[in-house]
Amino acid sequence: MSYFISFEGIEGCGKTTQIKLAARFLRKWRLPVMTTEEPGGSPLGKRIRKLLLKRGPFDICDEAETLLFLAARAQHIREVIRPALVRGNWILCDRFSDATMVYQGLVRGIDATWIRTLDEFATSSLKPHLTFLFDLPAETGIRRALQRMSGVPEKAREDRFEQEGLIFHEKIRKGYLSLARQEPDRFRVIDATGDVASISLEVCRHLKAFLSADGG
Amino acid sequence: MSYFISFEGIEGCGKTTQIKLAARFLRKWRLPVMTTEEPGGSPLGKRIRKLLLKRGPFDICDEAETLLFLAARAQHIREVIRPALVRGNWILCDRFSDATMVYQGLVRGIDATWIRTLDEFATSSLKPHLTFLFDLPAETGIRRALQRMSGVPEKAREDRFEQEGLIFHEKIRKGYLSLARQEPDRFRVIDATGDVASISLEVCRHLKAFLSADGG
Repeated sequence: MSYFISFEGIEGCGKTTQIKLAARFLRKWRLPVMTTEEPGGSPLGKRIRKLLLKRGPFDICDEAETLLFLAARAQHIREVIRPALVRGNWILCDRFSDATMVYQGLVRGIDATWIRTLDEFATSSLKPHLTFLFDLPAETGIRRALQRMSGVPEKAREDRFEQEGLIFHEKIRKGYLSLARQEPDRFRVIDATGDVASISLEVCRHLKAFLSADGG
Repeated sequence: MSYFISFEGIEGCGKTTQIKLAARFLRKWRLPVMTTEEPGGSPLGKRIRKLLLKRGPFDICDEAETLLFLAARAQHIREVIRPALVRGNWILCDRFSDATMVYQGLVRGIDATWIRTLDEFATSSLKPHLTFLFDLPAETGIRRALQRMSGVPEKAREDRFEQEGLIFHEKIRKGYLSLARQEPDRFRVIDATGDVASISLEVCRHLKAFLSADGG
């Protein structure tokens, strides 16, 4: 069996590090693992990501932003994720549909029903089998994200995701937690305030339980 | 009153020339006119157009292509078309939603109901008040399009819209005619086999009738 697992959470929640550690864990079990990300998980997605991040000289309205993220997802699904699932790979993906629900839905104000409909088109209804939500207070997340970027002031300026402040990130956090409550079977909410090793241990424990339960 | 008028038809149908002549006609009546185009009608749209045309090094699946055209449309509507309508302008637009129905729907095979739904999101249900369909046999259209590009072999190679052959263009033509039959009140089907001047005369006759009927 192959599984599609997404990793979600606010900036600085540590999901990118946790993906690497989860991949290492699964590879020890001799499972074929592929890590990927949104929106830059395909060559088209990388171009779209650049367009979204370096928007300086021109406007992108909320509807266009949503459609661009979904165009990246549509390509990612068809070029990368689905073929890898067919080959029997485990896919660990940094952000997926839940990110659109929270960032474009809750923050930008695009109607949730619209996002679900558009996402259904982009993904052909493919959903992650499991989603890890790394939960921590927005303040801790921002502090970590800023520490991480201390050597790259230019990136910090360019990356709009990092620039929106505490209230923004707290809203994102609450949005994610609300999605997790709606789908408790898919979500595993991980307390991400601890150290990297103990968080990873928690993730691996869930992966092991998931593997046993699903006969993988 | 301000009106939104789209110009549609296969390659080589002459719509771009006819937009210019229609704008000149309306300006003679001292009406404020703005001409625009899809997908390149906004700065974001121009970037998306470039992405779609110069796709050489990477794949764009049909779903992503559709979402990219719609992202361009969402921006075009909000940044250009709607503000211009509010200012009281007449908008003459080279291609709009009907082009997506025909190119992405009929040719690429994206389900028509999906395209209508996605387009409703992108446009917030804004539809042209009037649509001119310049109809001519695909063979004539291709011949004209190739003549027009005789000096620019590189463009001819790059522009995928031009490269799909006779059956492709005949399918597009039939698709447009079918849309026109579904909405006879919005569409004006113009025989585009004649010379530029007589086609323009026909367009202006329709514009005049539309003006009188709507009290513009």
